[in-house]
Amino acid sequence: MPLTTDSVAGAVPKAIEWVGGADGCLRLLDQTLLPTRVEYIDCDDVETVWEAIKVLRVRGAPAIGVAAAYGFCIGLRDQRQSDRSEFDAAAERVAAYLIGSRPTAVNLAWAVNRLQRAASEEPDRDSEAVWDALLAEARQIADEDAATCRRIGEHGATLIPDGGTVLTHCNAGALATSAYGTALSAMYVAHEQGKRFRVYADETRPLLQGARLTAFELQAAGIDVHVLCDNAAGALMAAGRVDLVIVGADRIAANGDTANKIGTYGLAVLAHHHDIPFYVAAPRSTFDLSLASGSGIPIEERGRDEVAAGCGRTTVPDGVSCFNPAFDVTPARLIRGIITEKGVSGAVSEAEIGEIFRNAP
Amino acid sequence: MPLTTDSVAGAVPKAIEWVGGADGCLRLLDQTLLPTRVEYIDCDDVETVWEAIKVLRVRGAPAIGVAAAYGFCIGLRDQRQSDRSEFDAAAERVAAYLIGSRPTAVNLAWAVNRLQRAASEEPDRDSEAVWDALLAEARQIADEDAATCRRIGEHGATLIPDGGTVLTHCNAGALATSAYGTALSAMYVAHEQGKRFRVYADETRPLLQGARLTAFELQAAGIDVHVLCDNAAGALMAAGRVDLVIVGADRIAANGDTANKIGTYGLAVLAHHHDIPFYVAAPRSTFDLSLASGSGIPIEERGRDEVAAGCGRTTVPDGVSCFNPAFDVTPARLIRGIITEKGVSGAVSEAEIGEIFRNAP
Repeated sequence: MPLTTDSVAGAVPKAIEWVGGADGCLRLLDQTLLPTRVEYIDCDDVETVWEAIKVLRVRGAPAIGVAAAYGFCIGLRDQRQSDRSEFDAAAERVAAYLIGSRPTAVNLAWAVNRLQRAASEEPDRDSEAVWDALLAEARQIADEDAATCRRIGEHGATLIPDGGTVLTHCNAGALATSAYGTALSAMYVAHEQGKRFRVYADETRPLLQGARLTAFELQAAGIDVHVLCDNAAGALMAAGRVDLVIVGADRIAANGDTANKIGTYGLAVLAHHHDIPFYVAAPRSTFDLSLASGSGIPIEERGRDEVAAGCGRTTVPDGVSCFNPAFDVTPARLIRGIITEKGVSGAVSEAEIGEIFRNAP
Repeated sequence: MPLTTDSVAGAVPKAIEWVGGADGCLRLLDQTLLPTRVEYIDCDDVETVWEAIKVLRVRGAPAIGVAAAYGFCIGLRDQRQSDRSEFDAAAERVAAYLIGSRPTAVNLAWAVNRLQRAASEEPDRDSEAVWDALLAEARQIADEDAATCRRIGEHGATLIPDGGTVLTHCNAGALATSAYGTALSAMYVAHEQGKRFRVYADETRPLLQGARLTAFELQAAGIDVHVLCDNAAGALMAAGRVDLVIVGADRIAANGDTANKIGTYGLAVLAHHHDIPFYVAAPRSTFDLSLASGSGIPIEERGRDEVAAGCGRTTVPDGVSCFNPAFDVTPARLIRGIITEKGVSGAVSEAEIGEIFRNAP
């Protein structure tokens, strides 16, 4: 049976949603309060959207893109009665403002630029008509993201054995996208298909996205989820309690080397050591074919306090430095396959990845 | 030059110390307050010692043994004027009481039993003379532990290259013993020898002994120490930034399989993958030759809240279970050598371990 995004959306609180019509608002789940409080922010002005992106109330590259697209519409709503030159000038300002909220998130600029292009392609329409078209385009971005995630899940679900156990890291779920997510989409679809399985979620230090977000959304969907400290994954595998690993990705090079949340690489080495299949789930938009290999992917090192005081109290002595890379790179040879909206790849290689992009889209 | 325990003891706050003579007290560093507060507890009654062991103000098997030995003396101090039968009856009660504080710590019962044996070997002496002998025996236990740790450090220091980088996990240091520690003893001795090197300390979830304790004591000794989340060790090794790994041990089987803090096994697999030597440092008292292999070592699973709320706030949704083993087992084949007070072993095997115990002590 064909399943709609509503089946998960009904169980997992939506991270991001446009509520109402042209005079509606952008409703965001405040992810900084999870898992203890489920609270929404209704954004009626662009400053509220900007702040929400800035402080990670909404996070995950696809979700940020969707939030920025709706934020762009909100920022221009007062200009619907302006003439087009005023409208276009305001659009420039709003775009620059939103893109500045988190300069490193590729999807953010991509979504805003897509709306700007849509406006510029209609130079003769009045501001109100253009604005309506922008809101429709923002909805389209959200819908496309959900549909892509859904297809990733349908392909990924084939890998999850009935009665099996899946390990994941960080949060590549519904909370990071319009719906479903990437790695977690496979679990949602398998769950809808009636498969019974258990998910182990690494807590994912330092920011605990696995404990706070992945556990939250899988629990909401009725999936059997357990949390472990990142360092316990080896013991779990050694005990024969992991059938496969599925993680998301932040960027994938042309040869399949994959940057993802710090700890992914260690997990891949452990999976390899135990001969446990290790899969990466990501839309084709996550590939960066301009990079021949993972060595070209820049790795952001983040601030000391995420490690030293990120738990809500000081855990590292003053004056002691912390090594805090946000991501690591898993070489293609440790990845059994990449799950995209086009299917599950074979052994990861440049040729296999070329196949994913053949006859695109 | 022969170095005394004072050289580290002067820099690192002592975890445990007898202050004064027969009317003195047991001074414990309250490790639950580290790294933000350095406070001592002067124990004048056995209840205070019991509570300190119970809630981990003092921790680490050797340190617990020493604390219990002094606690036994404190618990009997009021009986010095009693006749021997009363004294011996009180000794039974105090021993049982102390041993009940943490039933799983082997050194605790071992130290108390050693003092009981010392008393029973002197049936004709009066209570005051026996009590003096008990205090001397407790001091002896502390001194033996420090001397053993010192020798482990002298052997281990030979493995640390000048200009090199060592990774460690959890806290196998001065705070866990009378002085020096086991894994960290190698670093203290290398530091005293004038070697320059960097130590990376895994923070060690869930209880953060690496961040809170290892970083604290190495910093106090003037050693260059950096903290990382446990899941970042793979990225550090992949970047070529680790020359060797040294960890402690909780129990070592006859074939060399080693139980240690959760996460040790994953680190050993990563070290193996990167061809980085992985060493275990432990006194001979940590070996359990009654166990043929690590599969016989019972692994304690601890409570959910250490993971779900151990950071000082709730990080896992209510109703989601946590997998929280306190230890894991590293197979002998992943261990390059075991550092004991007798030296550094060759490739770990039952025969090699037999050699460590030949002509004991």
